Amino acid sequence: TKMACCGNCFCCQCCCREGETRTPEELTILGEIRDEEDEILPRKDYESLDYDRCINEPYVEVLEGMDNRKAKKYEAVRWMMVFTIGVTVGLVGLFVDFFVRLFTKLKFTLVGDSVEKCSDKGCLPLSLLELLAFNMTFVFIASVLVLIEPVATGSGIPEIKSYLNGVKIPGIVRLRTFLCKAAGVLFSVAGGLFVGKEGPMIHSGAIVGAGLPQFQSITFKRIKFDFPYFRSDRDKRDFVSAGAAAGVAAAFGAPIGGTLFSLEEGSSFWNQALTWKVVYINVSQSMNPTDRGSPYPLFCSMSATFTLNFFRSGINFSKWGSFQLPGLLNFGEFKCPDGDKNCHLWTAVDLAFFVLMGVAGGLLGALFNCMNKCLAKYRIRHIHPKAKFIRVLESLLVTMVTTVVIFAASMLLGECRDLSSPTTHNTTLQIFEDINSTIRQFFCTNKTYNDMATLFFNPQEAAIHQLFHQDGTFSPVTLSVFFLLYFLLACWTYGVSVPSGLFVPSLLCGAAFGRLVANILRVKLGMDIYSGTFALIGAAAFLGGVVRMTISLTVILIESTNEITYGLPIMITLMVAKWTGDFFNKGIYDIHIQLRGVPLLEWETEVEMDKLTASDIMEPNLTYVYPHTRVQSLVSILRTTVYHAFPVVTENRQNERDFMKGNILVSNNIRFKKSSVVSRAGEQRRRCQSMKSYPSSELRNPAEEGEDLLQQMLERRHAPYPNLYPDQSPSEEWTMEERFRPLTFHGLILRSQLVNLLIRGVCYAENQSSATQPRLSYAEMTEDYPRYPDIHDLDLALLNPRMIVDVTPYMNPCPYTVSPNTRISQVFNLFRTMGLRHLPVVNAVGEIVGIITRHNLTHEFLVAKLRQHYITV
Amino acid sequence: TKMACCGNCFCCQCCCREGETRTPEELTILGEIRDEEDEILPRKDYESLDYDRCINEPYVEVLEGMDNRKAKKYEAVRWMMVFTIGVTVGLVGLFVDFFVRLFTKLKFTLVGDSVEKCSDKGCLPLSLLELLAFNMTFVFIASVLVLIEPVATGSGIPEIKSYLNGVKIPGIVRLRTFLCKAAGVLFSVAGGLFVGKEGPMIHSGAIVGAGLPQFQSITFKRIKFDFPYFRSDRDKRDFVSAGAAAGVAAAFGAPIGGTLFSLEEGSSFWNQALTWKVVYINVSQSMNPTDRGSPYPLFCSMSATFTLNFFRSGINFSKWGSFQLPGLLNFGEFKCPDGDKNCHLWTAVDLAFFVLMGVAGGLLGALFNCMNKCLAKYRIRHIHPKAKFIRVLESLLVTMVTTVVIFAASMLLGECRDLSSPTTHNTTLQIFEDINSTIRQFFCTNKTYNDMATLFFNPQEAAIHQLFHQDGTFSPVTLSVFFLLYFLLACWTYGVSVPSGLFVPSLLCGAAFGRLVANILRVKLGMDIYSGTFALIGAAAFLGGVVRMTISLTVILIESTNEITYGLPIMITLMVAKWTGDFFNKGIYDIHIQLRGVPLLEWETEVEMDKLTASDIMEPNLTYVYPHTRVQSLVSILRTTVYHAFPVVTENRQNERDFMKGNILVSNNIRFKKSSVVSRAGEQRRRCQSMKSYPSSELRNPAEEGEDLLQQMLERRHAPYPNLYPDQSPSEEWTMEERFRPLTFHGLILRSQLVNLLIRGVCYAENQSSATQPRLSYAEMTEDYPRYPDIHDLDLALLNPRMIVDVTPYMNPCPYTVSPNTRISQVFNLFRTMGLRHLPVVNAVGEIVGIITRHNLTHEFLVAKLRQHYITV
Repeated sequence: TKMACCGNCFCCQCCCREGETRTPEELTILGEIRDEEDEILPRKDYESLDYDRCINEPYVEVLEGMDNRKAKKYEAVRWMMVFTIGVTVGLVGLFVDFFVRLFTKLKFTLVGDSVEKCSDKGCLPLSLLELLAFNMTFVFIASVLVLIEPVATGSGIPEIKSYLNGVKIPGIVRLRTFLCKAAGVLFSVAGGLFVGKEGPMIHSGAIVGAGLPQFQSITFKRIKFDFPYFRSDRDKRDFVSAGAAAGVAAAFGAPIGGTLFSLEEGSSFWNQALTWKVVYINVSQSMNPTDRGSPYPLFCSMSATFTLNFFRSGINFSKWGSFQLPGLLNFGEFKCPDGDKNCHLWTAVDLAFFVLMGVAGGLLGALFNCMNKCLAKYRIRHIHPKAKFIRVLESLLVTMVTTVVIFAASMLLGECRDLSSPTTHNTTLQIFEDINSTIRQFFCTNKTYNDMATLFFNPQEAAIHQLFHQDGTFSPVTLSVFFLLYFLLACWTYGVSVPSGLFVPSLLCGAAFGRLVANILRVKLGMDIYSGTFALIGAAAFLGGVVRMTISLTVILIESTNEITYGLPIMITLMVAKWTGDFFNKGIYDIHIQLRGVPLLEWETEVEMDKLTASDIMEPNLTYVYPHTRVQSLVSILRTTVYHAFPVVTENRQNERDFMKGNILVSNNIRFKKSSVVSRAGEQRRRCQSMKSYPSSELRNPAEEGEDLLQQMLERRHAPYPNLYPDQSPSEEWTMEERFRPLTFHGLILRSQLVNLLIRGVCYAENQSSATQPRLSYAEMTEDYPRYPDIHDLDLALLNPRMIVDVTPYMNPCPYTVSPNTRISQVFNLFRTMGLRHLPVVNAVGEIVGIITRHNLTHEFLVAKLRQHYITV
Repeated sequence: TKMACCGNCFCCQCCCREGETRTPEELTILGEIRDEEDEILPRKDYESLDYDRCINEPYVEVLEGMDNRKAKKYEAVRWMMVFTIGVTVGLVGLFVDFFVRLFTKLKFTLVGDSVEKCSDKGCLPLSLLELLAFNMTFVFIASVLVLIEPVATGSGIPEIKSYLNGVKIPGIVRLRTFLCKAAGVLFSVAGGLFVGKEGPMIHSGAIVGAGLPQFQSITFKRIKFDFPYFRSDRDKRDFVSAGAAAGVAAAFGAPIGGTLFSLEEGSSFWNQALTWKVVYINVSQSMNPTDRGSPYPLFCSMSATFTLNFFRSGINFSKWGSFQLPGLLNFGEFKCPDGDKNCHLWTAVDLAFFVLMGVAGGLLGALFNCMNKCLAKYRIRHIHPKAKFIRVLESLLVTMVTTVVIFAASMLLGECRDLSSPTTHNTTLQIFEDINSTIRQFFCTNKTYNDMATLFFNPQEAAIHQLFHQDGTFSPVTLSVFFLLYFLLACWTYGVSVPSGLFVPSLLCGAAFGRLVANILRVKLGMDIYSGTFALIGAAAFLGGVVRMTISLTVILIESTNEITYGLPIMITLMVAKWTGDFFNKGIYDIHIQLRGVPLLEWETEVEMDKLTASDIMEPNLTYVYPHTRVQSLVSILRTTVYHAFPVVTENRQNERDFMKGNILVSNNIRFKKSSVVSRAGEQRRRCQSMKSYPSSELRNPAEEGEDLLQQMLERRHAPYPNLYPDQSPSEEWTMEERFRPLTFHGLILRSQLVNLLIRGVCYAENQSSATQPRLSYAEMTEDYPRYPDIHDLDLALLNPRMIVDVTPYMNPCPYTVSPNTRISQVFNLFRTMGLRHLPVVNAVGEIVGIITRHNLTHEFLVAKLRQHYITV
């Protein structure tokens, strides 16, 4: 309870909404300052994934060689790949589940026996030591595995969510991460920590999805695809989405829930293809081999479930060939006793309580998230900077406390409860284990059992079953203590450097809460209710309050209970819990994403944001290349900037000739054209004006005022070309019109593409035609995916700086663009829906005036810009 | 069986893929010729809906007045609206269900009694007459209702699908249609036709969704929205989507299935908001009042289910307050007998049979669709042109045949089967009616029943229950006859002019097929299988083969059986059935959409289409307006064209000055720019070239060749301005450069907006400033939605033709645009995802070169263009 106190005092600070303290000047350079104490802003150093296709000449070449037969073959390979991913994920799930069961059984059998023995002999401390030894060994292994690959910490869902949102997080889909995660979660669960294996399983599935198709194309080069289509962010992301869905399916035995999960939490970026790969078989052309709108994740989930159930039914229940097994996490059968005609699983009256429980779940979830956020911040500030072994020590400390608490609570606080007559639960399937096989009788006489020990001295899944189905009541004190301990310890544990999921601990915690409510209603108010339903609703409420998912969670829970009539109450509870929780803070995954500073994009912008236009939020300072550029210029641009893409432009020096005919109509039209065309120089002047309009006291250096400061800023940050560029070196005397001269936009070229061109020597000599430039194929362009060489890997000695590179065949000649006056909601929709990485802003006469990336669209950036807008208006 | 023969001979023609007979010249003007005999091409006279926002000045004005409080209020109204829609749809479902039950019960009780009596007395013809009288009366009423509003024919799903795809079909969401549909389906189902009420219920739901928010804002003007947001295609479509989902939910009692349905069949157009309104509560900001990504359809479905169950439990079962009812369509409980340990609902071995049944279902479904397509074509050609009462006669004929067949089959072909000992199905809920209460004993002795009569002399739902759960077997002969009769009659019935769904007949037909398979496997092969499962799978296979849905159908079926373990087999069966069926033809709904000539857009284009670019498919002949245009010009443009939108352009006469510096790099860059900028004249010249390259024999008039014909075509169709336009009247001597002179693109204005401006007298006099032009508010702009006045309603006498209209405040200043070289897949994605109506094609220097609408993106148009591409390359 020390924790609770500590948490509560932290919370006052954490739970309050973001402070309204930033000044306009800070806002304009938002993303460069990070206020450690207050709020973690999206970091600008995360790279984006590119979901849009770059249809340049090499790609068109491939396209022209494409026919129906090739497309069919390629599609078949894709399906095979997805199937393989599903099977592999299923096997991984099987592996983890098998060993967790093995270790847990071993542990509890040995320690249980020892306790039974020692309760007579009085050697209980010995049993505690035994348990401690088991747990600390397991957790030590898990912790060391995470030291090897720090990205394997935690549940992995925030990382996968970020990845599918379009943010590249280094190391997140590597083989090493996979091994550490899968093995680590096995040991952290077996080690008795209050963690689940579901999150890590989803992460593992995603890695399998990302890795398998790559592996195949690297190792078995002989299986050559004529359409080298898997080597792009676009395809990888589809496979990751499928793999994550399979992970959910394997973890919960919920294939439909899995697909929905990959929609709800996962594929934030999508286009039709991705969406329908997730939910849908194309209405009219699924047999059409070129149809890319196929249900990969669903198929993948199904494969995983299938594989898992096939092997589990064989290995665990010796019933090879039966697939009707519940998943790894199943809640048993909710059922009224046969004779009881008045029994209802739930009634309309109960719904009112469910809503209240939803509110409570939302509040508890918000508290949990808040405390966990504070802890995570504390860890970032005080533990992460220190030596790595400190983290191992922390996890061992958590293990020790958890173990001691479990042991002490079971021994000291448990009550002996009557074992109700074993009601014959009418389980047509023998695979549901008998509910009474997992009770613990520590210190209790023959017909009673120790309720606390029954909950603590079992695997978490068994404890959930007890809470859902045990007709023998648990005492309110036991339930309260159990809830409290679980709440605090689970909160402390999530974030410790071991692989750790949150689903099962949250469910268990919530189930205890729900059972408590049921006990009170039943015993104190004498209501005729079904306890199991309340436990289930409690579990849903708390889990919903913590993770704030709705649809996929509803389906997962329904699939786990196999009782569709629970649809309505679960859905209502989850919605209420989410709404209540959202009033205080975000979901736990979003909190951890925010703590990492990931520039996640929301689904939509707020209505108010539409007061801004594209020109308000774009980055106006461009580093560009010409269609034909000298090698030396390219090298200097690449070396002196960090941008990942460069617009390809030509200059547009001529002025518009006005041709007035003396006709009012024509001149009006021309006047409109002149006033409506946003130019870079005009835009820049406007910005300067609006900056000058700030009260000078709000500027950072009040001494240097006005024009001077602006001039400095412009020179420091915005010189379009460094002086190394010889062809048109910007002279110091340039006016703003010169500096921001009109540039016609022709396309976009990526840094990786430019480096690739330079490394492969794609250029022509000054005295030759540009047709003499060597041509690269699509395969050569994508060979190094996903780790393209850096500009600093380039040996300058091999390059003739006077050679000219014609970038036009390799640029993306027609990216989507927007006009400077486009409203934010439209910009945002385009960017999100199409999964863009760079969105050029082009005016009415085709001149580029700025560029928009994900950093210009984060909620924080938009809020800052909106405040700036209000100030200047 | 006359039908079968007829159908089969038709089929040879129908099932073959589309003929490859069109010539290139036909292709270029595709959409203008409609080859009645061969294939129905998308018609060009359907108007599109506009899903994109037009953010013009009046809208921005509204936006600027928007604050958090208003947004919140507005959002609350939206939620209320959605809830009301859900409740209303639930009540409609209740109404239809109640009266169908009432009438059916009345009918079968009376006729059944009469048969029982007459089987002794030998007055059976009298019973037949009685039945005929009932059925023909009911169907006559239904048929007359459809005469009042012909759009109410059929299931309505094709129409709703088209609507949500973005095609305006006149009258489809009117109140009159609703009344005729809801009342009509009641009578057509009660009339004993082989039709379901599910499709019409979905249509009714959609109309409620479209109508309620409009009604509210028209009638209760006092509840004034400061943000008049419901009066646009965008909002209406969202509500329609929610209403359709509620319809499914009410019809099947499947709220999740309903939401998925509205995704799979419905909201073909979507953006994030719409998608998540359907599946999802926003992860992080649902409590945020400005969040438009909220789960309206889900909420709406839930409301409908809730309402329906509340009243049904009260009215039908006298259990007010119990919500755990199955929906209107439920399949009862699939359950092994309690004692039987070896009983499995299904095993791995069965899966193989399910796949085979899926194939068979796909084949049968394809046959069904093919026959129905031929029938529909026949009707279009020979029945629809005739007097309307012919349609009534047809429906009466169908009714008569159906009634006689039912009666005759029951009397003559039924076998007496042993009634197996009434197994105590362990129905914890009393609401499942006893399976044996619906058997018919006609002519059979006490312990046996007439199997044919049991299937035919019951409501269809009861027959489905019999097939799924009756342990007493049906004889294979009975099942075969039943299947065959049902197949043929249902096929004949769908398309007759009564409101008619397809779900239940298909399910029943498929269930008979599945039960037949089960009988064979069980009796002939002695396999230990569960008959009910096979009947269910058969039903799924046939239904899947007919409608070709997968995800939503799976969920609907699972929700109807309340047995999640059926997920895998149902999914597999549906997928196999769909794939098999797609090999032959489209789903029944798509066939009927195609027969209407609706320019439906698919989800994605094929890979091969990427060989085309935007400039290949765009419409290059533009009718445009200037920012400031004279009233007389506007009127003449509006009167002489049928376009729904006009680009707002200014002329761009100056030539580019080349400024060579003698520097090879700069000149290369300039050369690139010159060659890369697509111009209208150049584009037109290219088209002329490629037309000339066709063999002249393929041109329609071989006599007039080459340039002449082209010139004629250009003059006939493409004169940008008719001669009425005085300011710059095109002279006959204009060169192509003059005719297709460069135009800088500034925005897009809709026909309805222009008419509105003219009617409200928004213009300024020549000698005044354009600032004197009166301004319209957003409310004034949208007042007449959805039926804007026509240009011919305009009284020209009231207008001064010399006045000038400044359209710039009212145009959409920044629609999404694409460059001429953009590949089709990108164009298509943008168009589909953003729900566009017009997509301007703008070149690198901001000149408009063409425009793309949905007609340029239909599959048929793209195929034609691709063939043209192959010929010219």
